[in-house]
Amino acid sequence: MDNAADFLVANGRVLTMDPDDRTIENGAVAVRGERIVAAGSAASFTGWRIGRTVDARGGIILPGLVNTHTHAAMTCLRGIADDLPLMTWLNDHIFPAEATLDRDKVGAGTTLACAEMILSGTTCFCDMYLFEDAVAESARRAGMRAVVGEVLFDFPSPAYGPLDKGFEATQALIDRWRGDPLIRVAVEPHSPYLCAPDLMRRARDMALENDCLLITHLSETRSEVSRIRERYGRTPVGHLEKMGLLCDRLLACHCVVLTEADTALLASRGVKVAHNPESNMKLASGIAPIPELLAAGVCVGLGTDGCSSNNDLDMFLEMGTAAKLHKAATLDPTVMDARTVLRMATIEGARALGLDEITGSIEPGKQADIIVIDTDRPHLKPMYRPESHLVYAARGSDTAIVMIGGRVVLENGSLLTIDVEKAIHDVNRIADSLKRRSPA
Amino acid sequence: MDNAADFLVANGRVLTMDPDDRTIENGAVAVRGERIVAAGSAASFTGWRIGRTVDARGGIILPGLVNTHTHAAMTCLRGIADDLPLMTWLNDHIFPAEATLDRDKVGAGTTLACAEMILSGTTCFCDMYLFEDAVAESARRAGMRAVVGEVLFDFPSPAYGPLDKGFEATQALIDRWRGDPLIRVAVEPHSPYLCAPDLMRRARDMALENDCLLITHLSETRSEVSRIRERYGRTPVGHLEKMGLLCDRLLACHCVVLTEADTALLASRGVKVAHNPESNMKLASGIAPIPELLAAGVCVGLGTDGCSSNNDLDMFLEMGTAAKLHKAATLDPTVMDARTVLRMATIEGARALGLDEITGSIEPGKQADIIVIDTDRPHLKPMYRPESHLVYAARGSDTAIVMIGGRVVLENGSLLTIDVEKAIHDVNRIADSLKRRSPA
Repeated sequence: MDNAADFLVANGRVLTMDPDDRTIENGAVAVRGERIVAAGSAASFTGWRIGRTVDARGGIILPGLVNTHTHAAMTCLRGIADDLPLMTWLNDHIFPAEATLDRDKVGAGTTLACAEMILSGTTCFCDMYLFEDAVAESARRAGMRAVVGEVLFDFPSPAYGPLDKGFEATQALIDRWRGDPLIRVAVEPHSPYLCAPDLMRRARDMALENDCLLITHLSETRSEVSRIRERYGRTPVGHLEKMGLLCDRLLACHCVVLTEADTALLASRGVKVAHNPESNMKLASGIAPIPELLAAGVCVGLGTDGCSSNNDLDMFLEMGTAAKLHKAATLDPTVMDARTVLRMATIEGARALGLDEITGSIEPGKQADIIVIDTDRPHLKPMYRPESHLVYAARGSDTAIVMIGGRVVLENGSLLTIDVEKAIHDVNRIADSLKRRSPA
Repeated sequence: MDNAADFLVANGRVLTMDPDDRTIENGAVAVRGERIVAAGSAASFTGWRIGRTVDARGGIILPGLVNTHTHAAMTCLRGIADDLPLMTWLNDHIFPAEATLDRDKVGAGTTLACAEMILSGTTCFCDMYLFEDAVAESARRAGMRAVVGEVLFDFPSPAYGPLDKGFEATQALIDRWRGDPLIRVAVEPHSPYLCAPDLMRRARDMALENDCLLITHLSETRSEVSRIRERYGRTPVGHLEKMGLLCDRLLACHCVVLTEADTALLASRGVKVAHNPESNMKLASGIAPIPELLAAGVCVGLGTDGCSSNNDLDMFLEMGTAAKLHKAATLDPTVMDARTVLRMATIEGARALGLDEITGSIEPGKQADIIVIDTDRPHLKPMYRPESHLVYAARGSDTAIVMIGGRVVLENGSLLTIDVEKAIHDVNRIADSLKRRSPA
């Protein structure tokens, strides 16, 4: 073996999140090109030829966080309206604002989102929105890993017009980004309540033909469940089963309102779930039965949802909320322990996106998606167990270094791939135009 | 009027949290000595003689946050054990560790807590623990406002031994700190389940005689309610009512498990409540009926509890959790709106501590307890409504400037009153000795 690396991320405690959940005290990770070539004790790298040593300064080295559900460009609408009934919020605020978006605005909103995500330790996100080609472009320029997909629904889209054009746009997206090192494309029908069965089946077929992930919102609210029951006589999960959509390439976002039969069905079909606790709380959707889904063997990743219903993209805070929320809901302090939640935000998130052979853990052969957490801060002292701090005490702003696919994108507080001032300026202009339209 | 000030905190948006909830765009706050002398538009200070202008750089200027329930020195035990059943956590981890504490260790732990609190925008905290004279000393040295009180219970304390000595220690604390500009002393019986009726009544009498706050844990868990019902045939609230403890100088911490009659009783007696949502979640105590308490007219402040059950002292994160949790619990997105939660973390918290004439809002005559939030960060852009960002998007690390009683204690990232390196070193040593005692 050629003991050479372009980078050695060294002088930290490595949480690998590998199948053995191995932690390496005073460890280091060697990176060659895009990939991790070795992870081990500092001593194990004696004699290696190292291009550059990246100093973790005694912090925690772990795989980059994976955000399994975003509408990244909704940064443009962060805090535009809160504390409202869902339909008022959507119909009077979010939808009218979204109708004014265009390709450039979505690109700008996504760039700001990428800045926020990198600064808070996220290296990969899975997006659903309008003008997703612009999302992919922004992610690529930021150096972030992303799964993107144009949202499909029955009514005309501000992005592509009638539905047929939506499928064309999705196919064009698939063709354009095939083979890209950072970007994957998914087929993304919005939800069973905004997508007729024909749309749903066509989306599934397109996902199968193109070997893509299929992504939809599912069972997010009680009102959705009522509507689907009225219309189809089944729960949303049962409705998807009936149409043959439940399969191991389906990522179902939210899954807040489930029957026991729904949970069993999701498990038996290998459906993956994106859990978005803060959005579910803020929109008063409720509390997803995640401990039950995990007990049934469902793969669950963690996500923030769009930052109009959160209102941030900080996966550290999402971990803290996920770990604590289900304890309160079940009155059982042992559920959703720190290790489980940390896996949901890393390797299980990657698995939910079909990317677990590429990212989500620190293992030789995987892409070098690595972050370093600065633990030399009052709120992270003392330290008994690193996973406890990552889940219960750290916040995104403790992220010191981010590397994605072997490229350093954050170091010394500086984003190396994004002009942050310009990103803020662009989104402020979009917000100014929205403010002029509708006085708050 | 003499138009002169020692400081002008200028160039920001001032959220006064005054009775009119006044927001001043491009505003400033003038400070003379310990006190605020004026708050208004930048223009209104033309012609003033200003000692020094503190530049808020376009951020948000608001009253310092008030943490109504802490066990500050538990920083020493941050993350020592999590995800365990309550009795295992307490008996096998927390109590044995606490038995090793002494005055110096509590002082060191409190100093680290003060560092964390100031860095995250808190200017006042209300503490219950052992060796509270050391807590008061640490707070005073850090320049923080604090309410302190030696915890009283039926069994011997590691701090003072038998109960009589505990009352002596409390009286000594009261006498020592009387008239101090920063420190107030409260009488603090731990809880109805660890304090016999005699202790409770004696504590009440001492609080009345010395014009002090009376503070206790109350109705925190279902098991507490069962125990009190078995022992006294009443709910914990009913039990305190029977003993004549419910009054407007009582601060009841937690109040998670309440009957409707309990809520009505707390309201009619003017009892104040400290709400600690993250601790209640993490310990699986449940979700306190805060919207009901507010509807009944109860004054509710916000708190973090000790950072072994949180695991941080960040009041911004606590605000976000409080705002979102109750929406999920009630399935109503309109409860606990941003303004309500921001008031809980400022003026209502001050009112809960009997300090609302001194702190909690920006009003002439009040102590100059003022913080500045740096909003020039990707996760706080764009901005439609400042209160939304403070509650739903900001985190403690966005705090740029902290002034307490007219003294700048945080500026340019530097704590001016605490040697942070020493504070971390001291607490790390305590943690090392605990690690040697019991292998994790």
